[in-house]
Amino acid sequence: MIVRHKPGFLELLIATHGSVLPRILPRILALTALAALLVWLDGSLLALPHTNAAPFAVFGVALSLFLGFRNNAAYDRWWEGRRLWGQLVADMRALGREVVMFQPEGHQRRPLRLALAFIHLHRANLRRLSHYDDGHTWLEDGEDLRDAPHPPCAALDLMARDVAHHAPDGFAKKALSERIGSIALAQAGCERIAATPLPFVYTLLVFRTTYLYCLLFPFALLEGAGWMTPLFVAIIAYVFFGLAEVTEELSNPFGETVNGLPLDAMCRTIEISLLSQLGEEAPAPLKPVGYYLS
Amino acid sequence: MIVRHKPGFLELLIATHGSVLPRILPRILALTALAALLVWLDGSLLALPHTNAAPFAVFGVALSLFLGFRNNAAYDRWWEGRRLWGQLVADMRALGREVVMFQPEGHQRRPLRLALAFIHLHRANLRRLSHYDDGHTWLEDGEDLRDAPHPPCAALDLMARDVAHHAPDGFAKKALSERIGSIALAQAGCERIAATPLPFVYTLLVFRTTYLYCLLFPFALLEGAGWMTPLFVAIIAYVFFGLAEVTEELSNPFGETVNGLPLDAMCRTIEISLLSQLGEEAPAPLKPVGYYLS
Amino acid sequence: MIVRHKPGFLELLIATHGSVLPRILPRILALTALAALLVWLDGSLLALPHTNAAPFAVFGVALSLFLGFRNNAAYDRWWEGRRLWGQLVADMRALGREVVMFQPEGHQRRPLRLALAFIHLHRANLRRLSHYDDGHTWLEDGEDLRDAPHPPCAALDLMARDVAHHAPDGFAKKALSERIGSIALAQAGCERIAATPLPFVYTLLVFRTTYLYCLLFPFALLEGAGWMTPLFVAIIAYVFFGLAEVTEELSNPFGETVNGLPLDAMCRTIEISLLSQLGEEAPAPLKPVGYYLS
Amino acid sequence: MIVRHKPGFLELLIATHGSVLPRILPRILALTALAALLVWLDGSLLALPHTNAAPFAVFGVALSLFLGFRNNAAYDRWWEGRRLWGQLVADMRALGREVVMFQPEGHQRRPLRLALAFIHLHRANLRRLSHYDDGHTWLEDGEDLRDAPHPPCAALDLMARDVAHHAPDGFAKKALSERIGSIALAQAGCERIAATPLPFVYTLLVFRTTYLYCLLFPFALLEGAGWMTPLFVAIIAYVFFGLAEVTEELSNPFGETVNGLPLDAMCRTIEISLLSQLGEEAPAPLKPVGYYLS
Amino acid sequence: MIVRHKPGFLELLIATHGSVLPRILPRILALTALAALLVWLDGSLLALPHTNAAPFAVFGVALSLFLGFRNNAAYDRWWEGRRLWGQLVADMRALGREVVMFQPEGHQRRPLRLALAFIHLHRANLRRLSHYDDGHTWLEDGEDLRDAPHPPCAALDLMARDVAHHAPDGFAKKALSERIGSIALAQAGCERIAATPLPFVYTLLVFRTTYLYCLLFPFALLEGAGWMTPLFVAIIAYVFFGLAEVTEELSNPFGETVNGLPLDAMCRTIEISLLSQLGEEAPAPLKPVGYYLS
Repeated sequence: MIVRHKPGFLELLIATHGSVLPRILPRILALTALAALLVWLDGSLLALPHTNAAPFAVFGVALSLFLGFRNNAAYDRWWEGRRLWGQLVADMRALGREVVMFQPEGHQRRPLRLALAFIHLHRANLRRLSHYDDGHTWLEDGEDLRDAPHPPCAALDLMARDVAHHAPDGFAKKALSERIGSIALAQAGCERIAATPLPFVYTLLVFRTTYLYCLLFPFALLEGAGWMTPLFVAIIAYVFFGLAEVTEELSNPFGETVNGLPLDAMCRTIEISLLSQLGEEAPAPLKPVGYYLS
Repeated sequence: MIVRHKPGFLELLIATHGSVLPRILPRILALTALAALLVWLDGSLLALPHTNAAPFAVFGVALSLFLGFRNNAAYDRWWEGRRLWGQLVADMRALGREVVMFQPEGHQRRPLRLALAFIHLHRANLRRLSHYDDGHTWLEDGEDLRDAPHPPCAALDLMARDVAHHAPDGFAKKALSERIGSIALAQAGCERIAATPLPFVYTLLVFRTTYLYCLLFPFALLEGAGWMTPLFVAIIAYVFFGLAEVTEELSNPFGETVNGLPLDAMCRTIEISLLSQLGEEAPAPLKPVGYYLS
Repeated sequence: MIVRHKPGFLELLIATHGSVLPRILPRILALTALAALLVWLDGSLLALPHTNAAPFAVFGVALSLFLGFRNNAAYDRWWEGRRLWGQLVADMRALGREVVMFQPEGHQRRPLRLALAFIHLHRANLRRLSHYDDGHTWLEDGEDLRDAPHPPCAALDLMARDVAHHAPDGFAKKALSERIGSIALAQAGCERIAATPLPFVYTLLVFRTTYLYCLLFPFALLEGAGWMTPLFVAIIAYVFFGLAEVTEELSNPFGETVNGLPLDAMCRTIEISLLSQLGEEAPAPLKPVGYYLS
Repeated sequence: MIVRHKPGFLELLIATHGSVLPRILPRILALTALAALLVWLDGSLLALPHTNAAPFAVFGVALSLFLGFRNNAAYDRWWEGRRLWGQLVADMRALGREVVMFQPEGHQRRPLRLALAFIHLHRANLRRLSHYDDGHTWLEDGEDLRDAPHPPCAALDLMARDVAHHAPDGFAKKALSERIGSIALAQAGCERIAATPLPFVYTLLVFRTTYLYCLLFPFALLEGAGWMTPLFVAIIAYVFFGLAEVTEELSNPFGETVNGLPLDAMCRTIEISLLSQLGEEAPAPLKPVGYYLS
Repeated sequence: MIVRHKPGFLELLIATHGSVLPRILPRILALTALAALLVWLDGSLLALPHTNAAPFAVFGVALSLFLGFRNNAAYDRWWEGRRLWGQLVADMRALGREVVMFQPEGHQRRPLRLALAFIHLHRANLRRLSHYDDGHTWLEDGEDLRDAPHPPCAALDLMARDVAHHAPDGFAKKALSERIGSIALAQAGCERIAATPLPFVYTLLVFRTTYLYCLLFPFALLEGAGWMTPLFVAIIAYVFFGLAEVTEELSNPFGETVNGLPLDAMCRTIEISLLSQLGEEAPAPLKPVGYYLS
C-alpha cells in the first residue's frame, strides 16, 4: 500500500509509484500510433470513412457503465478485505483480554501464541506463500502445521482444544468459543475474496469493449479534431485502460502489489497487542519503505 | 466458475469459455444483417426516413439505467450467494470446534457427520438435483432423508435432537443451538436467492427496450455512419445483449452454469475441515478442470 | 410473484402477465396521439416553434436520475421485504429446534402452534386483510386474537408467557427470549416497510417531470424525426411510465399484486417446517398458478 | 409524513401538500423572468453572446452527479432514521416480553413505564422540544428528569438500576442489560443523525452550481429555443431546486416537516404494545390528519 | 464540523467557512488566465486548432465517473467514522449501566474512569496528537500510559483486568467482556479508516485527468463560446477541483479540518454520560465557535 498523503502538484505529475501508467504505456502508444497513421492516411493517400459521434456517445455511456460497475466491485472487495483484517485485529485484542479474564494463570500464554501462529499462517495462505515459516516461531518446539490440510484452521483447532481443556467453567468456554467463531468468520471472509475472482465474463466484456472503442474512435474524430486525434486517443486510452488496470489490482486485495493491503504491517500490529498482553517485549510497528508499506 | 487470473491480450481476444458471445451471436448477426439491408435499401431502392440522434441519446441513457440497475442487482445476488456459502464454511468449522469443546467424547462424530449430510443435501436442494445421494454417505446405515418434506432441514433437526440429548449442560446446548441457528439463517438466505428470481417485469422491460433500440438505431446512423452502420449495430447489440445475458446468468448463482458458484468445491472444503477435526483422513481440494471449477 | 425463468423470444414479445403495459397504455396512446397532432399541425396549418435538443439532454439526465433513484429505492424495499421473510423462515425453523432442545416434552406443541398463528396474523396485518381467520386454526378452542390491539404481537406475547412458565432453567428462557426478540425485529422491519411509503414528494417530482418531458419532447423532434416523432414519443413514454409503474408496485412488496412477494407460499413453507418438527403431517408446498405464486 | 397511496392524475397535478413547489416558486419565477428579459434584449436592443451547448452538457453531468449523490445521502439518512425507530419499536416490545419472562411479578410495571418515559424524552430530544412533559406521565409522582444532563439517558439509567435491583438471577440481568444496550445503540444512532448534518460544503457546492447553471443556460438556449427559453429555464430550475429542497428536508428526518418521520405515531404504537403487555387499556393508533401523520 | 442549518441566499453566496474555494482559487485563476490567453492568441496572432466537443463528452463522462466514485468512497469513510463514534457513545453509556448492574459497589468507579482515559487516548491516537495528556486526568496518580506500545489498548487492558478481578460471577465477566469487545471493534474500525487512505492510484488518476481536461477544453470552446470560454473554464475548474478537494478532506474524517468530525464534542458527550452515572458533576456540552464544532 502506498502511504502518501496530499502530494503536491509536481509530485502528482511525475509520481510513478502506485501509478499504473508504466504497465499500460505500451498499449497507449500502440493505439496512439495507429490513430496517427489513420490521420496521415486520411489526409494523403485515401479518404477513410468518417462517422459522426452519435454511436460513440451511446458506446461511451455503456463502457462507462461497465467500468464504473467493475471499479465499484473491485474497490468493495479491497475495502472489505481491509475491514475483515480490522475485524481480525479487534478479535485478536479481544481474545487477549478474554484469555486473561477467563483462563487460569499459567494457561494464558499458549492460546495467544497459537493466535499469533494462526495470523501468520492465515497471511501466508492468502498470499500463497509456499515456503513460509514465520508462523512457526510461535508454536512449541517440534510442532509443525505446514502439512496440515489447512494450516490456519489447524492452529485454531489446537487453540480450541487447549482452551476447552483448561477452561475453569462454562462461561470461559462460551466466551472463548464465541471469539474463535468470530475469528473463523473473518478468516472465511478473507478466503472468500482470495478464492473467488470477479466473474471472468466482466473482464472479457470490459477489455473487448475498450479495445473496440479505442480502435474505432479515430474515425469519429478525423473530421472534428484533425491532428489532435492521436492526443485524444491517448488520453481516452489512458483513462479507460488505467481504470481497468486499477480495478484488476484492487480486486485482489491480498496480493503483494503496490496497491495491495499491508498484511505484514497488520500482523505486526497484532503481535504488539498480544505480546504486550503477555507482558513480553513488543516489536516496533512496521514503517513504509519508499512510501510502500508491505 | 471460471478461475483464470489476468489472461494475456490474445487470450482475451479468443477466449470463449465464460464468454456469453456464443449464446448471443445469432441475435447479433440477425440485427447486423437487418441494418445492412436498411443501408442498401436506403442507397438504392427507396429513401428511408432519417432521424437525428437526439431521441437515441435519451433512449440510451434510459437503457443504460435499466441495464446498470439489473447488472448491479444480479451481481449482488451472486456475491451474496458466495457470502452465504462463506458463512456456511465458517459456521461448519466453528461447529466442529464447538462440538469438540462442549460435547462429551464419543458423541462428537454423529453431529459432524450430520453436518456433512446437511451441506450436501443443501447443495442438492439449491441446484434441484433430484437423484442425489452424496449426502447419504454421511448418514447411518438405513437412514434416508430424501423423502423428508425438506431434506436439509431434516438433517439439522436430527442434529439438534442429537446435541440436545448428549449435551452435558446448558452452556453446551446454548452454544450449539446458536450455531445451528446461524447455519439455518445462511441456509434460508440461499433458499431466498434460489426461490426468488429478479422481478420478471425487469426482464420484460430490458429485453423489449434493447430490441427496440437495436431495430431503430440504424435510422439515426444512416446519415452519419453510412456503411459503418452495421458494424456499430453489431457492437451495440454485443454490448447490450452481452450485459443482459451476464445478468441473467449471475442472478442465478447456484446454477451449474459457467459463471455459477463452485458449490462442489466448497462442499469439499467443508469436508476437509470437519474430517480433520474428527481425525479422519481428509480428501484433496477440488481443482478446476479446463479453468472451470464446479 | 411471477415465476418464469428465461422465457423465449416470442414469449418476451407477447407476455402480459407481470407486464405493466396494460396499465400505462392509455397514457402512452394519449401522448402519441398528441405528438401526431403536433406533427400534422406543424406541416399543414401553422409552423410550431422548433427547439434544439440541448435542453432535453439535461432534462433527460435529471429525469433518469430521479427514476433511477426511485427504482433503486423501490427494489431495495422489495428485496428487504423478502430478506425479512427469509429471516422469519430461518427464525421459525430455529424456534422449532430450540423448543425441542430446551423445553420439556409435553410443552413443545403450544409454542410452535402459537408461532404458526403469529405468522398468519402477521401476513394478514401486512396485507390489511380484515376478515381473516387462517391464523386461528392454530389457537386453542375459543381463543381469539382478532380483537387484540395488535394481533401478531398478542400471539408472541402468549408465546413468551407460555415459554417462561414451562422453561426448566435460565438457559431455556435466555435462548427462547433471544429467538422471540429476533422474530419481533423481523416483524417490525416488515411493518416499517408496509407503513412507511416512499416520500410522497418523489412521486410528485417524478410524475410531473415525466409528463412535462413527454409533452415538450415533440417540439425538439419535429425537425429531426418528422413523422417518426410519434413513434419515439411512444417509446419514451413506455420506458419512463413503465419504470415509474414498476417502482410504484415494487415499493409495496406485501401487496397482492403481480410482482408482490409470495407471502402465502412462505407461510406454507413455515407450516411444513414446524409441523415436521412436531411429527405432524406436513402439507404440500404451494405451486404457482399460471406462473403466479401468491 | 404524507400518507397517500397512488393519487390519480389530477391530484398529482394540483397536490401542494408534501410538494416543495411553494417554497421554490419565487426562485423559479425570478430566474424565468431574467431569462425572458435576456431573450427580449437579444432580439431588440443588443446581440448577446450565444454559446453552444457543449459546456452545459459537461456542467449538467457534474450537477446531476452532485444532486444525485446528495439525494442518495439524504434519503439514506431518512430511511436509516426510520429503521432505527423500527428497531426501537421491536426493542420495546421485546423488552416488554423479557420483563414478563425474567422479572418477578410486582416488579414488571416500573421498567416498562420508564421505557415509555424514555421514548417520549428521546422524541423530545430529537425534535428539540423544550417545554415538553409527555414523558412525565409515566414517571412516579414528583420524579422529574427534565433537568438531567441528558433526559433520555437518565430514564434508561433508572431502568437499569431498577432491573438490577429486582433481578432474580444472572440470566435476568444478562437478558435485560443486552436489551437496554440495544435500545441505547438505536438511540445513539438517532442522535448521530440529528446532530451531524450533511457536510456543509456540499450545500455550498450544490447551491452555487445550481444558480450558475440556471443563470448561464439561457445563453446556450437563445439560438436553439428562442421564446421557449424561459419555459425551459423554469422547468430546469423546478427540477434542480426541487431536488435540492427535497434533500434538505429528508436529510433531517426527525424535523416536524411535511416529509419528516411520524415520531408521534410511533411513540403511540409503542404505548399500545407496552400497555397491552401490562394489561392496561391501550389508546387508539394515531391517524393522519389531511394526509399528514405527525 | 460546520454546524449551520439552512443558510439564506446571501450567506450561501459569500460563505467561506467550510468552503474549499480559498484553497483552489489559485488553480482556477491560473487555468482561467491560460484560457483567456488562448482566446486572445486565437483571435489575433495565430489560428489555434479547433476541435469539436465529441471527445470531451466521453472524457467528461469518464471524469465524472472517477469523481463520483471517489466522492462516494470519501463520504462513506466520513460517515462510517461518525457511525463508529456513535457506536462508541452507545457502548460507553451501556458500559456505565452494566458496571452499575454487575459490579459490586466500590468497584464501579475505576472501570468508568479507565473508559474515559481510553476515549481521550483513542482520540489523541486518531488525530496523532503527540503531546497529549487529557486522558491522564482520569487515571490514578502516577499512572502513565503514554509510553505504552499502544496507549488506548493499554487502557482497555487495564479495564479488563480490573473487571475480571472484581467481577462477582461469570455473568458479570461475560457481560463486561462482550462490551469491551464491542468497544475494541469500534476502535479498530476507526484505526482502519485513519491508517488506510483511499488507494493513491485514484488520487493520481483524478488529478491528472482533471488537469488534462481543463487544459484541453478551451480548444473545444473557442469556436462555440468565444470570449465566454474563460468563464466556462473557471466554472468547470471550480466544480471539478472543488469536488476533488472535498473528497480529499472528507476521506480523512478524524483530521482537525473544517469538515472533520467533532471528536472533542463527542468525548465531552461521553464524559457527561459517565460522570452522571457515577453521580459526579457533569460538564456542559461543547458549543460551536463561529459555526465550527471541534
